[in-house]
Amino acid sequence: MKPTTATFFDLVRSQIPLVEARMRSAPDRHHPQLSLAIDHLLASGGKRLRPTLTLLTARMLGTDEDKAIGLAAAIEMLHTATLVHDDLIDGALLRRGIPTLNAQWSPAATVLTGDFLFARAAELASQADSVRVMRAFAQTLMTIVNGEINQLFVSRGQVSREDYYRRIYAKTASLFAVAAEAGALLGHAGEEAVAAMRRFGHEVGMAFQIVDDVLDFTSEEMRLGKPVGSDLRQGLFTLPALCYLEQNPEDRDISSLLNGRAGDPEIVGRVVRAVKGSGAVEAALAEARAYVARAQAALASMPDNVYRQSLSELAEYLVIRNL
Amino acid sequence: MKPTTATFFDLVRSQIPLVEARMRSAPDRHHPQLSLAIDHLLASGGKRLRPTLTLLTARMLGTDEDKAIGLAAAIEMLHTATLVHDDLIDGALLRRGIPTLNAQWSPAATVLTGDFLFARAAELASQADSVRVMRAFAQTLMTIVNGEINQLFVSRGQVSREDYYRRIYAKTASLFAVAAEAGALLGHAGEEAVAAMRRFGHEVGMAFQIVDDVLDFTSEEMRLGKPVGSDLRQGLFTLPALCYLEQNPEDRDISSLLNGRAGDPEIVGRVVRAVKGSGAVEAALAEARAYVARAQAALASMPDNVYRQSLSELAEYLVIRNL
Repeated sequence: MKPTTATFFDLVRSQIPLVEARMRSAPDRHHPQLSLAIDHLLASGGKRLRPTLTLLTARMLGTDEDKAIGLAAAIEMLHTATLVHDDLIDGALLRRGIPTLNAQWSPAATVLTGDFLFARAAELASQADSVRVMRAFAQTLMTIVNGEINQLFVSRGQVSREDYYRRIYAKTASLFAVAAEAGALLGHAGEEAVAAMRRFGHEVGMAFQIVDDVLDFTSEEMRLGKPVGSDLRQGLFTLPALCYLEQNPEDRDISSLLNGRAGDPEIVGRVVRAVKGSGAVEAALAEARAYVARAQAALASMPDNVYRQSLSELAEYLVIRNL
Repeated sequence: MKPTTATFFDLVRSQIPLVEARMRSAPDRHHPQLSLAIDHLLASGGKRLRPTLTLLTARMLGTDEDKAIGLAAAIEMLHTATLVHDDLIDGALLRRGIPTLNAQWSPAATVLTGDFLFARAAELASQADSVRVMRAFAQTLMTIVNGEINQLFVSRGQVSREDYYRRIYAKTASLFAVAAEAGALLGHAGEEAVAAMRRFGHEVGMAFQIVDDVLDFTSEEMRLGKPVGSDLRQGLFTLPALCYLEQNPEDRDISSLLNGRAGDPEIVGRVVRAVKGSGAVEAALAEARAYVARAQAALASMPDNVYRQSLSELAEYLVIRNL
């Protein structure tokens, strides 16, 4: 069985097209180029894990379907908006094999499209009729952007697990956390349940990003859609490299990358092979599995229904996909 | 008496520093470079008309002072965020005589700072505890950004009053409208009063932008902080030029600017002199005064207190400043 046919996907398969339709709605109120941009961004696909998380949480706790669709659309729109500006900043030309907006449009049009999508995400979120949801959205965007600014001003040669965890929280887990939290708020869950679901989203998001970072070492270029080891090429030390460094503190290639030769392709190639040949990948995956286990523990107090089961499967899926 | 000492400024003079302090607050939650950016942006001053509008409206209708300060800070933050991306897109190096962020920082840092300020504006707006206020913020940002995208894709050689009014609504009046509307919502005004104050903000914003566009013809370079006629240089036909065109439909310089020679400095110089020497400036100002009169009419049903009087003065001030 391919992982993409997991039960949790079946449960929301009928709803994701509704989420995408909501994201495309209200085109009469904006320039046709913006509609084209939204269509283009949606065409690049993706697993829609974040809106799925929102939908499953909202359905587990029982809520208005229409509001849940709107909120899921808001989450995916916020995610999409951050990607538009990310790709512009990184000068990325492809995402999931499809040209980025900035590859086709001027920087001006790309900046403005991202801005519009941020605003549209907030407008969609307002359909949930909750100031708290909207505030959580705003704070999540602050966390994400602040994380990226930290990256811009980071000093080379410093790597620590603490920095790594802080970075992947800002980059990924913060949005997973709000996706689940907002779903719970929509379901009028009590404070404890809201906190538990936020924790679930957080842990799941951390696991997701760790696996992403592992795949950057272990996957094939074709599948990844970018060169293997591209994090190291950009001078970014992710968990597998950190685990390897802990096991091999004297490794001279790592020292070179940390001190002045960041991104050197030849050294990167050697380090990628060394990391893959060591226990570092397995150590990183063990971390990811620990996050998944904590996520699943956070579900314990939730109503025991098919949606809770699906959330548990979703967490499990994150550490088996493409490995 | 200098216009800047008008009574309405006295009334809020004690509060604007509180608004600015609120804009600077919570620096522990973000990168020090963001605090520097916010300080820099606030140092460039400005008349703070938008937060003044919010504060006067909220006080006129009677509301929680602390929430009014937060909402005024949110309005000015939203305005500031749009300027950061505007200046980046235009490649502007100075604003109000002070270097723009993009003149000092990389495009990446400038894009991210703008994004952070958008999110911070939404977080500040959430202090008003009103989904409707937050939705109005989001929709205003969509209007502003959509207006800028229209400008990017506009076809040359087409000018009409209708386009002009639509453009200055998106660019300026939409934010003035929400500044007053949000103040009224905070004051728990009835639907009619909220609509009247939104109308007040709208009319005042239109008048403000028309006067700005007149100053681009009539002011001196020193005072303006940019070359006279800079709109025409950028191929932008504002109300004074449109009035002149209506009075002189056969003018060959205007035809040249509209057809292929947009921004030609020599022709722009001749057109600026022609517009100033015609009745076009007076015609444009008469329009601005009509907007002010309609704004003042919108105040008729408001509580008759010193704040209403101040709002009326603020509207009046817009058409006499710097002329």
